Amino acid sequence: MNQTPHPLAGKPLELADTLRSGNAWKIRLACGYMGLPIKRRTFDIVQGDLETEAFARINPWRQVPALLTPEGEWLAESQAILWYLAMGTPWLPAGRLEQAQVSSWLSFEQTQHMHAFAQPRLLIHLRNTAQVDDPAMRAWREIGMNAAALMDAHLAGRDYLVGAAPTIADVALYPYTSMAAEGGYDLSGFTHINAWLARMRALAGFTPLIEAA
Amino acid sequence: MNQTPHPLAGKPLELADTLRSGNAWKIRLACGYMGLPIKRRTFDIVQGDLETEAFARINPWRQVPALLTPEGEWLAESQAILWYLAMGTPWLPAGRLEQAQVSSWLSFEQTQHMHAFAQPRLLIHLRNTAQVDDPAMRAWREIGMNAAALMDAHLAGRDYLVGAAPTIADVALYPYTSMAAEGGYDLSGFTHINAWLARMRALAGFTPLIEAA
Repeated sequence: MNQTPHPLAGKPLELADTLRSGNAWKIRLACGYMGLPIKRRTFDIVQGDLETEAFARINPWRQVPALLTPEGEWLAESQAILWYLAMGTPWLPAGRLEQAQVSSWLSFEQTQHMHAFAQPRLLIHLRNTAQVDDPAMRAWREIGMNAAALMDAHLAGRDYLVGAAPTIADVALYPYTSMAAEGGYDLSGFTHINAWLARMRALAGFTPLIEAA
Repeated sequence: MNQTPHPLAGKPLELADTLRSGNAWKIRLACGYMGLPIKRRTFDIVQGDLETEAFARINPWRQVPALLTPEGEWLAESQAILWYLAMGTPWLPAGRLEQAQVSSWLSFEQTQHMHAFAQPRLLIHLRNTAQVDDPAMRAWREIGMNAAALMDAHLAGRDYLVGAAPTIADVALYPYTSMAAEGGYDLSGFTHINAWLARMRALAGFTPLIEAA
């Protein structure tokens, strides 16, 4: 869908990431959709890779993903990296209201959505330290099902979250929504979400999650 | 600091807010600094004002603040409202890296900072249902002191969080950092934070928190 070259085309981009993090997947998804090659440097959270002095120089907030920009600066927080990559492209509308609506969905993902999907997936699927019906997992899912209901209602009659074309708002919401079943979620009743997930997978440049090294 | 008129000058802006919320204060702070008049519609969370059908039409996410824009759309999430108000002004730099750095600090505030300061303040100061030394309050403060240490280190040698002038990143971090003592925090050791707080209070248009009706 990009008729003109990406403003970052040909510039060096390096991503500090982990293999199975949905937050890191957002960035690889965005780069795939935008046709931007990115060099990856993969860290292992379980092995303590984020606790080293070397990693504190990459990101003192000790999180992945982090992006090494062509200016030589490390940029933290997935929503900020998506913003950096999308400015000046159709993935981030330039108009005041639409751009603020993208910002609103990015904030929704971080504060009302992400943890409720990521935590059950981490503990049930990745670490195998919780069961689907544990009270704590049910509590997370109550929060997550509320977020899913809000998304589903918003997507009724819309193809994408903001405007008529996909934006980084859709990119940010895709990973953890699409992996919900790994946290014991059943989103099958949310028909608008499921149509939107299929729409995102059908876009040129879609990049699956990297499951293993 | 605005030499040119604000691009929203003269347009109708209405804010759904509550009196003592730090998230709502961010918006009133921004409007004060930018010289933008804003009409306020105040809700009372304790009285259940956010649970009505009428409020769901303002914000189905049932949160304040929400901004009624001149386009007639309600916009949710404090960071998105700040973005809407700041676009095209010195409060949001136009350059790709600086704008993404602002986004990074807005995300930091929402995910690593806000709850750790807001929750102890709510329970100790506003509701009086927790004591300063309760284990849960200590746990929040451990997270918040880590966030404060990261801010303090970043502000060493800098006047503002991004670039050489204040941005909405500073506006977003000001409220809950400045009210930390109400949650039992002692930030007196963070000299760079305290100098920055004083700098923010000294800027033209600074707007104090509204404590009561």
